[in-house]
Amino acid sequence: MKIEMICTGEEVLSGQIVDTNAAWAANALMDQGIEMQQRITVGDRLDDLVEVFRQRSEHADVILVNGGLGPTSDDMSSEAMAIAKGEPLVECTLWRERIQEWFTRNGRHMPESNLKQAMLPASAIMVDNPVGTACGFRVKLNRAWLFFTPGVPFEFKKMVTEQFIPFVEQIADSHVEVEVQKLLTIGQGESALADKLEGMSLPQGMTLGYRSFMPYIEIKLFARGEAAIGELDRVKGEVIARLGNAVVGHNVTSLAQVIHNGLLASGKRLSIAESCTGGMIANNLVAFAGSSNYLDQGLVTYSNESKVRVLGVKPATLDDHGAVSIATVEEMAKGARSLLDSDYALATSGIAGPDGGSEAKPVGTVAIALATRQGVYSQMLKFPARSRELVRQLSTAVALDMLRRELQESPVLVDYSSYRRFAR
Amino acid sequence: MKIEMICTGEEVLSGQIVDTNAAWAANALMDQGIEMQQRITVGDRLDDLVEVFRQRSEHADVILVNGGLGPTSDDMSSEAMAIAKGEPLVECTLWRERIQEWFTRNGRHMPESNLKQAMLPASAIMVDNPVGTACGFRVKLNRAWLFFTPGVPFEFKKMVTEQFIPFVEQIADSHVEVEVQKLLTIGQGESALADKLEGMSLPQGMTLGYRSFMPYIEIKLFARGEAAIGELDRVKGEVIARLGNAVVGHNVTSLAQVIHNGLLASGKRLSIAESCTGGMIANNLVAFAGSSNYLDQGLVTYSNESKVRVLGVKPATLDDHGAVSIATVEEMAKGARSLLDSDYALATSGIAGPDGGSEAKPVGTVAIALATRQGVYSQMLKFPARSRELVRQLSTAVALDMLRRELQESPVLVDYSSYRRFAR
Repeated sequence: MKIEMICTGEEVLSGQIVDTNAAWAANALMDQGIEMQQRITVGDRLDDLVEVFRQRSEHADVILVNGGLGPTSDDMSSEAMAIAKGEPLVECTLWRERIQEWFTRNGRHMPESNLKQAMLPASAIMVDNPVGTACGFRVKLNRAWLFFTPGVPFEFKKMVTEQFIPFVEQIADSHVEVEVQKLLTIGQGESALADKLEGMSLPQGMTLGYRSFMPYIEIKLFARGEAAIGELDRVKGEVIARLGNAVVGHNVTSLAQVIHNGLLASGKRLSIAESCTGGMIANNLVAFAGSSNYLDQGLVTYSNESKVRVLGVKPATLDDHGAVSIATVEEMAKGARSLLDSDYALATSGIAGPDGGSEAKPVGTVAIALATRQGVYSQMLKFPARSRELVRQLSTAVALDMLRRELQESPVLVDYSSYRRFAR
Repeated sequence: MKIEMICTGEEVLSGQIVDTNAAWAANALMDQGIEMQQRITVGDRLDDLVEVFRQRSEHADVILVNGGLGPTSDDMSSEAMAIAKGEPLVECTLWRERIQEWFTRNGRHMPESNLKQAMLPASAIMVDNPVGTACGFRVKLNRAWLFFTPGVPFEFKKMVTEQFIPFVEQIADSHVEVEVQKLLTIGQGESALADKLEGMSLPQGMTLGYRSFMPYIEIKLFARGEAAIGELDRVKGEVIARLGNAVVGHNVTSLAQVIHNGLLASGKRLSIAESCTGGMIANNLVAFAGSSNYLDQGLVTYSNESKVRVLGVKPATLDDHGAVSIATVEEMAKGARSLLDSDYALATSGIAGPDGGSEAKPVGTVAIALATRQGVYSQMLKFPARSRELVRQLSTAVALDMLRRELQESPVLVDYSSYRRFAR
């Protein structure tokens, strides 16, 4: 079965917005074992839309169409579909009532223009949108079912999950059970990971994929059918054994999520003292609801004066070793921990660049410490210095990984093969 | 002239990475007045690539092809192009030497597989890639020039800017001068902005566009030709007059950038006390190199104890008014400012959600204060509560906007039409 996607909208085509709907949908389909063949992005020109609907309907079995269902004049997916099919637009009474209800419920007057959203091609089958005024629908043309969805991400995702994927599975008439396991890794590029996993024999029905989102690479083990699903745990174990310290999480999308869960579960409390990461560690944790249960405080002690006054770092330490040093970052962590008597404190200090590097401490040099009630762990690393953002993201990842290891009672300091560790 | 783009790569098609190259390129072309007609994303299947090259070469004049120039077996853009054109692959001696030099310069041994990157379709014209081992090239097929670029974003952007855009302008043979002015806005949706700008008469050759990236909407005024360029300042003035407080920056991509420039220029210093924003304000500023020149410290005082111990908020204030209140946030700002005697301090405290709201203070309620040497400004707002991330981003934006207004000697507290302000 051939599945394609057509993304409409001048704002998507011209880069005014990044097409996250397309990436999200492809990823969600992949997680169900459904592969997409091709994706076309077209602007808001009626002729272009009609042409692309006609043309692709001769090649694909199912086409997911996104966008162009709104009330304004540049929303023309329904009209284009009607022309492509050679049939009139007809008002869908049910949907007209739904829109009117929707506005009444929200205490707003319905503009005339919204009635347009109830006009569907004559042969269209309505697809419910429980969360908005844009009506979904599907139309058969040539060999393809064209499945129309709204551009608003929240409405789109709901319709894909609840309606499109079940529809595709029904059309395919061969629902095979699938399962995905995801491993989160840091510290190695995609090619280095692939080298380490080379020669691993995967059972039939199992595939291995990579997804890169800074500073992580996610490894996906995708099993199709009962036999492959039965082998998942064994294969996952082998991947972990081969990759060692690179694997930092299972079925999570960030290290912050691992720490969030770990601190909530353990009832331990955390303080953070950040210099080069500048609030990024705290910000990643506060992104999760409930972080107030464990986060005592985060201190972005960017100036030396702040390190001394707020954290109690000794001026002599800064003078003798510099702000980016094991000695300084250890005092930062200890100071941050003791202020509110937290169980743990993380501290970072580094040279994020692009300026400020020296021969002894080039851009990308970062000192990181974790203080516990028992003592303090610290290390100095040299990260790739491609961008300031990258250095800060990698520093955040390693700091969180140190705490993850402590929470899981593993050795806190380990080698990440592509980040060089300095001698103390 | 019809311009299209073809994005290749399984990882782009299947959503393993978001296709930021495509959005970036479309946006960069638009800034030069060059419009893209269509974009196709295909996976790494040779037949699909050959078909799409052949088919689109009959419709477009220029096709920007991205990806598939690497050394591995799933990189097959050159091979597909050779097949589509019906000609062999031939080694480009010049490029082979360049690759060898590149590896030598970087002190690395060249794997055999990299030689593949010097194999180009026989009729290809090489396009230089000064920053990588993937060779760019262009080939004429049917009515189209297909222009091949590497997938690595850094290499891709360089090639588009330095080679592709000049090539298109040369082909078009009609270089018209263009100029773009960008206004950054907060506080209003795209449709509300469009309503306010409705009926504005734009001179010939000028167009107005929107680009949305949370929490901002950017308004682009695009002028084509000398006459339109001459009118840009006048029209920009009218847009600003119509939108009022919504406009928070000119030709910048974030409020943090405005503050960064403003504080550097004024020599004033800043401290930050964040509760619901949780390090986001500090993190946005530290993203800019040179922020150490003005950022004294950022304090993520997430717990009440931290607000009391670090910032000196009175326990009675927290008891009487709650953590999310004008009284608390004013004490937070004053406390943060006085710690290192900074010129300014920003403070936030709010209910980011999804839980924790009450009838009196629903999710999305945020108190924000700016302390100066003269006194303290504060306000309590109700933001849309669609997501925790959104509430935190809007809180960050308004806090930074308060400081922007102070730095520009404008009234600090103003109405943002779509955020409700609470009575004190």
